Amino acid sequence: MPNVRLTLAYDGTAYHGFQKQSGSGLPTIQETLERCLAELSGAALKVTGASRTDAGVHARGQVVNFVTGRWGIPTERIPAALNGVLPGDIAALDAREVPADFHARYSAVAKTYSYTLYNHPVRSPFQRLYSLHVPGALDLRAMRLAARYLTGRHDFSAFQATGRPVQSAVRTLTRADIEAQAPLVRLVFRADGFLYNMVRIMAGTLLEVGLGRLDPEALPDIIAAGDRARAGPTVPPHGLCLEEVEYDST
Amino acid sequence: MPNVRLTLAYDGTAYHGFQKQSGSGLPTIQETLERCLAELSGAALKVTGASRTDAGVHARGQVVNFVTGRWGIPTERIPAALNGVLPGDIAALDAREVPADFHARYSAVAKTYSYTLYNHPVRSPFQRLYSLHVPGALDLRAMRLAARYLTGRHDFSAFQATGRPVQSAVRTLTRADIEAQAPLVRLVFRADGFLYNMVRIMAGTLLEVGLGRLDPEALPDIIAAGDRARAGPTVPPHGLCLEEVEYDST
Repeated sequence: MPNVRLTLAYDGTAYHGFQKQSGSGLPTIQETLERCLAELSGAALKVTGASRTDAGVHARGQVVNFVTGRWGIPTERIPAALNGVLPGDIAALDAREVPADFHARYSAVAKTYSYTLYNHPVRSPFQRLYSLHVPGALDLRAMRLAARYLTGRHDFSAFQATGRPVQSAVRTLTRADIEAQAPLVRLVFRADGFLYNMVRIMAGTLLEVGLGRLDPEALPDIIAAGDRARAGPTVPPHGLCLEEVEYDST
Repeated sequence: MPNVRLTLAYDGTAYHGFQKQSGSGLPTIQETLERCLAELSGAALKVTGASRTDAGVHARGQVVNFVTGRWGIPTERIPAALNGVLPGDIAALDAREVPADFHARYSAVAKTYSYTLYNHPVRSPFQRLYSLHVPGALDLRAMRLAARYLTGRHDFSAFQATGRPVQSAVRTLTRADIEAQAPLVRLVFRADGFLYNMVRIMAGTLLEVGLGRLDPEALPDIIAAGDRARAGPTVPPHGLCLEEVEYDST
């Protein structure tokens, strides 16, 4: 029974997140994908996603895996076959066979997310589903300074949704970049793992810094105190995109 | 009674084109704009658009004008006020008072449209509403050669929807550029005026050339023959965007 690793891109606007919901009635990415895979393979399949993206969150490089019998279709042709049945807001990019112990979520060694700001006095009809509109001027230098304090190995309790405790909130953030291509500003975060809402709270905190409402020099204290109330707000989901999931090649 | 010229951007996905329809029941840009202007001004207004964009067509620089009494709002603040009541897929960019004889459509001296191709083997969930997916390789050199034959003053009867005769099909195309920023290819056309479906038929013809189905050297003959059947297909509306409308500054 081959274990297949599949890379996906999706516009999350019309979905109630990645994960199958019991009884919510709203479509999810997982359900839609499982339905299309069943249609192609003739058998019920369960997919496991690397990231359980929330409602409205997008992906350019979500990874899932599923164990399947032999179809008529060679593994490398699964994306083309899937794209024939998937709705237009989901695209299968790549499929390959992986060892039996590969698990899209537990085998991941790093993930990269972006959070996009549309920094212009007037909103854009074309960016509205993929970015947060920020009409005011942003101090990118201050944001970069604050972002540098975020990188490294820390207890990120201050950047975690309340009521979602985990055993350890220690994570290693290896990248926190501010990429400006006016009027878009992309915040890019890479870590070995993320806490619930961590990217959206880090983005909200950097946004407060950019708007001059928070001193970048306050970041070390906020991190050390581990107090959610001192970090910035959780910015809305539609600016968030799962860019990439990395695995050991061994 | 001031005559106000207003510039708009919109994502046309959810609209049945620009022009108000009697009895179709579908929203149009004009209706939505007139409703929001009435809400702000307290009086019914009729707007005139420079271009009657079709269902699904977008705009980054549509221009409309309307004659209005004095509101409480200075003209330069109309965009901000309008953006407070317009839906997120329409944005007001600029408003200014113009002479009484200014007419958004008849006073226009040039219009620029773009048609965007997404040239990649796999479709993009993010570009699907704003571009035509072209999986096959495109010969940009051949497309540029063909585009050069299109520019200039010609009778564009071959590039006009059948059953829409006009007095004269002579137009001057001052720009037909192929701008590649992989995987996007943007075809940009500027003319003193466009016939019905002219941009979509020119784009379809250049696409046939790019895919090697039509010799670029056939273009002069196709133009001279004025035969719609020899030009390429009318490509779908969602790749089309009205970029700019120009007026004499005098």
